[in-house]
Amino acid sequence: MKALLVVAHGSRRVESNDEVRALTGRLGAQAEGIYARVECAFLELAEPSIPDGLRAAIREGATQVIVVPYFLSAGRHVVTDIPAEIEVVRKEHPDIDIVLAPYVGAAPGLTELLLQQALKTGRDSD
Amino acid sequence: MKALLVVAHGSRRVESNDEVRALTGRLGAQAEGIYARVECAFLELAEPSIPDGLRAAIREGATQVIVVPYFLSAGRHVVTDIPAEIEVVRKEHPDIDIVLAPYVGAAPGLTELLLQQALKTGRDSD
Repeated sequence: MKALLVVAHGSRRVESNDEVRALTGRLGAQAEGIYARVECAFLELAEPSIPDGLRAAIREGATQVIVVPYFLSAGRHVVTDIPAEIEVVRKEHPDIDIVLAPYVGAAPGLTELLLQQALKTGRDSD
Repeated sequence: MKALLVVAHGSRRVESNDEVRALTGRLGAQAEGIYARVECAFLELAEPSIPDGLRAAIREGATQVIVVPYFLSAGRHVVTDIPAEIEVVRKEHPDIDIVLAPYVGAAPGLTELLLQQALKTGRDSD
């Protein structure tokens, strides 16, 4: 069974974490037929942690987990911290395929998305 | 003349700021014919500041500047800090139309982008 884990930074603001959870819910609907399970986890300040998120997926039968960092830039969190968290669970479950995907900020489609947000102001045709 | 200003948080890591600058460059090419000028500015830790970015656009002849926050969640920065920075320049230039667009994290296309990043691992067809 293939699972997807969206990994966000986590915030003291409950609303920010809930925003990630809502996005994950929408993603789950969209990813139907590709990933049997789509959940989120947080690097800090919110639950579940990345190891706990991975363990939950494995407990539910995932044999492969794709981890997508919900980050805009390749800072320390993306380059060092997230891989280290994943490594903890890889050691616990060497039989499970845990794959780190490129972070969201690296997606070529981001410029198109920025442009869409700008055009949404509806102030572009005057 | 219409200008677009991409506003990012700014980082101590030069590479992160350069990532935003590179993205802005690609966006500029894509937005040709819609916005005559596409630049970036930073809330903190990098240059130019948001007011300076706005002032530069106005100095070059912009009569309208669309500001797009390059942020994933509607935290304090998006809700309070960026509007406050914009307000400074609105007061200096009441004749210029400065419009705050929705932040990137609010874009409906984000789930599709996350899915694309996951599928890029190439581990989805086994």
